[in-house]
Amino acid sequence: MQSIISFVSDFGLEDTWVGVCHAVIHRACPQAYVVDLGHQIPPFDIRKGAAIAAAGVYQLPEAIHLVVVDPGVGGGRADLCIICEQGTRLVGPDNGVLLPAAWRGGGIRQAIRIDPGKIDFRGPLATFHARDVLAPAAAALACGVDPHALGVEVDPNELVAAPFGRCECEAGHVVGEVLEADRFGSLRFNIPAEDLESLGLAGERLEVTLGHNTLVVPLATTFADVSEGEAVALVDSSGWLTLAVNFGDAADRFGVEAGTKVRVRRA
Amino acid sequence: MQSIISFVSDFGLEDTWVGVCHAVIHRACPQAYVVDLGHQIPPFDIRKGAAIAAAGVYQLPEAIHLVVVDPGVGGGRADLCIICEQGTRLVGPDNGVLLPAAWRGGGIRQAIRIDPGKIDFRGPLATFHARDVLAPAAAALACGVDPHALGVEVDPNELVAAPFGRCECEAGHVVGEVLEADRFGSLRFNIPAEDLESLGLAGERLEVTLGHNTLVVPLATTFADVSEGEAVALVDSSGWLTLAVNFGDAADRFGVEAGTKVRVRRA
Amino acid sequence: MQSIISFVSDFGLEDTWVGVCHAVIHRACPQAYVVDLGHQIPPFDIRKGAAIAAAGVYQLPEAIHLVVVDPGVGGGRADLCIICEQGTRLVGPDNGVLLPAAWRGGGIRQAIRIDPGKIDFRGPLATFHARDVLAPAAAALACGVDPHALGVEVDPNELVAAPFGRCECEAGHVVGEVLEADRFGSLRFNIPAEDLESLGLAGERLEVTLGHNTLVVPLATTFADVSEGEAVALVDSSGWLTLAVNFGDAADRFGVEAGTKVRVRRA
Repeated sequence: MQSIISFVSDFGLEDTWVGVCHAVIHRACPQAYVVDLGHQIPPFDIRKGAAIAAAGVYQLPEAIHLVVVDPGVGGGRADLCIICEQGTRLVGPDNGVLLPAAWRGGGIRQAIRIDPGKIDFRGPLATFHARDVLAPAAAALACGVDPHALGVEVDPNELVAAPFGRCECEAGHVVGEVLEADRFGSLRFNIPAEDLESLGLAGERLEVTLGHNTLVVPLATTFADVSEGEAVALVDSSGWLTLAVNFGDAADRFGVEAGTKVRVRRA
Repeated sequence: MQSIISFVSDFGLEDTWVGVCHAVIHRACPQAYVVDLGHQIPPFDIRKGAAIAAAGVYQLPEAIHLVVVDPGVGGGRADLCIICEQGTRLVGPDNGVLLPAAWRGGGIRQAIRIDPGKIDFRGPLATFHARDVLAPAAAALACGVDPHALGVEVDPNELVAAPFGRCECEAGHVVGEVLEADRFGSLRFNIPAEDLESLGLAGERLEVTLGHNTLVVPLATTFADVSEGEAVALVDSSGWLTLAVNFGDAADRFGVEAGTKVRVRRA
Repeated sequence: MQSIISFVSDFGLEDTWVGVCHAVIHRACPQAYVVDLGHQIPPFDIRKGAAIAAAGVYQLPEAIHLVVVDPGVGGGRADLCIICEQGTRLVGPDNGVLLPAAWRGGGIRQAIRIDPGKIDFRGPLATFHARDVLAPAAAALACGVDPHALGVEVDPNELVAAPFGRCECEAGHVVGEVLEADRFGSLRFNIPAEDLESLGLAGERLEVTLGHNTLVVPLATTFADVSEGEAVALVDSSGWLTLAVNFGDAADRFGVEAGTKVRVRRA
């Protein structure tokens, strides 16, 4: 089986960047299979990049995840390879963008600071780290290179913090925040699927407080478990607890933004 | 030769959905070659999805066409595999989105309702049918699985209707409608290339009535058969009769919308 | 090693065009590996297409570059295969879009006018030249076909001119123009990396006159060589001299447009 490299960035698709990284990976490791998980992250939006990367790990835990949202490129921030407890491998800058993905992979088993000098790429160019260091590092992993050959281990506690925190339990509520609205207007919260049961939220109905709105919605497995136009909570394909409206747009209806505080409890 | 799977959806490219389906297909059938025919269909726009899917069949009749525009996902609508008279295979929801593509393939030879229980995917998740049922079904076909192994045959006459009808002959006119405007502003009608001759429209000039406008235009083979700024009818790469303006934008000039009635006859 | 075909166009990603070209290349030459360098070139924008294609050659000189921005398609303009002095191969229309890429490849060694009759594609359709002539030509090259088998040599001096000129030295200044702003707002000039040293610009600070603004900026190797919010000149991943603002948007700050005249000298 070929290794799958999933690729998330804020590069957009108007320029050469994504395609050149594909070519670099292909040259370095022809047997790797690259899938694009989304390059339309708004420029420098570490928060959105982290949410998408975590959704990628939830769905493709066996893949190597290359995540490049990197406003500080060239400024001395480290390049990381993270090995998660469940084996998932992540490659990207040390600016927090990898951490929610690492939570999804069961936490950090090892973090390695990549030494660009160990990457066999002709003529590294300081302004395109993705092409010259990160993509070649992902390709090396895909071809079986030991992560320790790429650099030295660093203490996971020293890494730059994630762009959002983990949800918390507090007086019978789970307290979190809105991560993003997806293309269909569904609102994703930083409450992962794997925590729902342990948080005592596996009941049939949830009370969700979202900014100034409080609503009671069924916790369902699909949009169609409610009538057209009704709100529903579910774990969507991203693995985050999500508030959706069947055939509608929850972001429009509830008017909330990324970062809005959310409280959830059994209704 | 590897099987080609063409993939059309309303998923956009901002999220993990398209890439995850690529990964699922690759894992299930590494020899399949997936080409993306367009994922920017507006959310839930079955009409546009059907027009694009039919254009795909016109150009790649030997491919397996995976088409996912699926507002009713999770609501009990069936998943279909359609084998066209000319051999083209289609996979998607039973909501009409596949039917214009089936017309293009010579009509329906067999329609099979896919039984998700027959799809060997770990942990189907109800909210992402494309990843958990439809993409694996397309991958199975690409790897040589008999469509009948995926479910049971259903009567093609029982399928949900197409989002637009077929053009009709009426008092010397062909009466149809505008399907969509493409990126360059060309207006596509639901009048397929293969019907033009049988409809007696292979003449040199056409009278086209479009809403309140009537114009006479040459039926040409390329935009450049008219001067810059002039209108021209032709069968474009999609296989639909198309009204274009050389170096211009027909949608802008004629101000019509998807669904506008069109009458065409020899001038 | 598989041949890499890089693909630039103004097709966008809403329609079947890009995917169909991928399928055509794959059928004709399964061992080719296609990377998309950008299909969001604004419709008919030869200037932007040429700038992106040149950036592609700078980064992937060993690839075959398929470049399709082709407002005159069908109007008798020639299809070209250009072999650059440094070996890079280019395929696209004779409308100037290939020339800056050819400069990047060291100039034109040979230009061949492709004879569509030599392309073994069933049923060429006049309106989709990219699918029916240019993509098959690129695939033929990827599979080892001699370019001379595709048509006859033409005099490079007879080709349609590039959409922008080369920069020029004049009274101690290099005079060029703004090519485009990238996604992050960096302004690219038609001053290639390889000319910088020969132009005597390898100093530490540059004086850049851009429309009515004159500024003095460091010539750095990365954005982070200046403080947040400060302007910097560098050769970015495209290989063009670029004016950027660290963590900011140079196009916003300096308000210039593609085509604006630029003068650069050592400060």
